[in-house]
Amino acid sequence: MSELRVAVVLYAGMTTLDAAGPIDVLRFLPDAVLDLVSDAPGPVRTDSGLELVATTAYDDCPRPDVVVVPGGPGTAEALGSPLIGWLQQVHPTTRWTTSVCSGSLLLAHAGLLAGAPAASHFGVLDLLPQLGSARSDQRVVVDEEHHVMTAAGVSSGIDMALALAERLSDTTTAQAIQLVIEYDPQPPHDTGALEKASPDVVRRAVELGRPQGAIPEFWEPPAR
Amino acid sequence: MSELRVAVVLYAGMTTLDAAGPIDVLRFLPDAVLDLVSDAPGPVRTDSGLELVATTAYDDCPRPDVVVVPGGPGTAEALGSPLIGWLQQVHPTTRWTTSVCSGSLLLAHAGLLAGAPAASHFGVLDLLPQLGSARSDQRVVVDEEHHVMTAAGVSSGIDMALALAERLSDTTTAQAIQLVIEYDPQPPHDTGALEKASPDVVRRAVELGRPQGAIPEFWEPPAR
Repeated sequence: MSELRVAVVLYAGMTTLDAAGPIDVLRFLPDAVLDLVSDAPGPVRTDSGLELVATTAYDDCPRPDVVVVPGGPGTAEALGSPLIGWLQQVHPTTRWTTSVCSGSLLLAHAGLLAGAPAASHFGVLDLLPQLGSARSDQRVVVDEEHHVMTAAGVSSGIDMALALAERLSDTTTAQAIQLVIEYDPQPPHDTGALEKASPDVVRRAVELGRPQGAIPEFWEPPAR
Repeated sequence: MSELRVAVVLYAGMTTLDAAGPIDVLRFLPDAVLDLVSDAPGPVRTDSGLELVATTAYDDCPRPDVVVVPGGPGTAEALGSPLIGWLQQVHPTTRWTTSVCSGSLLLAHAGLLAGAPAASHFGVLDLLPQLGSARSDQRVVVDEEHHVMTAAGVSSGIDMALALAERLSDTTTAQAIQLVIEYDPQPPHDTGALEKASPDVVRRAVELGRPQGAIPEFWEPPAR
């Protein structure tokens, strides 16, 4: 069997969990080979301060089968980086080009979404139309036509990666990976989406998330 | 306000997602300061090949408020490492000492569980009694008496970290963090626990997980 080259993009100010979810799902796919791609090999500082080490420069990863683009406060700066040109170059031959969180802004800016709706973190969802895409409130958006998959904020990358694993292999394999990582979610509360959180919780989320760039300055809670 | 020192342990052969879940939850706690501790500062290779960079040697982290010990196939080797002595040294003054996945074997081996039941990955749960603890099938076990919290496999670290965030702050804060990371799980299937997976799925999980050390050689599916 031939390799399945999975390229996970790393850039300064990204969020670790956006990448870690897909990595620890997709690596169990048969014949998966992981490349951690960035401007150059070496450590990349995430928004928590944790550094992840890139193995491969964009130029040395010309034909990935799967691309995963994480999000995070670093997305704004990444919009002007060599990542965009690389995405444009490799996307035509990927099986799936995917994003988590604000990573979909990078796919949109690269012109890969072709006006189709995409998911993103709720804090930046309204930027998608300005980048030639459209907003979707779904947790995972599968766009078969453009072989693009986008996910909502941070933790949704796990759900996306399981959907992706199923399409790259089969249902039993995806279910087996879910078991290996014991993904049987039991959050203590049910406030993980904007429409499920009380105004107090939303206010507190802004207080905690804004200083770390997880919720942008311009974002205002929707009136209700 | 004083700092909340959160020490996340890194060791060779650990699983990235075990640490990434708690990191991207706990960092939003007010005054949280993250230390990535290991034998020495520098890159640590996880079981996916991704390297995470430790910032702090165990010796330079004598008084963490919170300790997070991830799991992974590297746990076996970590049982004989300086991590164990450090856990014994720092645990008496932590607010919470926690583990994800097979990380609970390290807490047990360090003598921190004092015979109390703990969670772990299903593949190693039966080892806990041999290490002076007891097995729990719960996803998250909160042991207030010993200020220890343990979680089941890999992804359960997110659930644990939210429960921990609530105890370290308040309910609204924990709910707000859940919103910031959009943890509104929607897995495509419901096979993330052993009792929910069909025999075919369990067999496939062993096929995929065993070569990567995610399911140990000695583990056999329970009869049913």
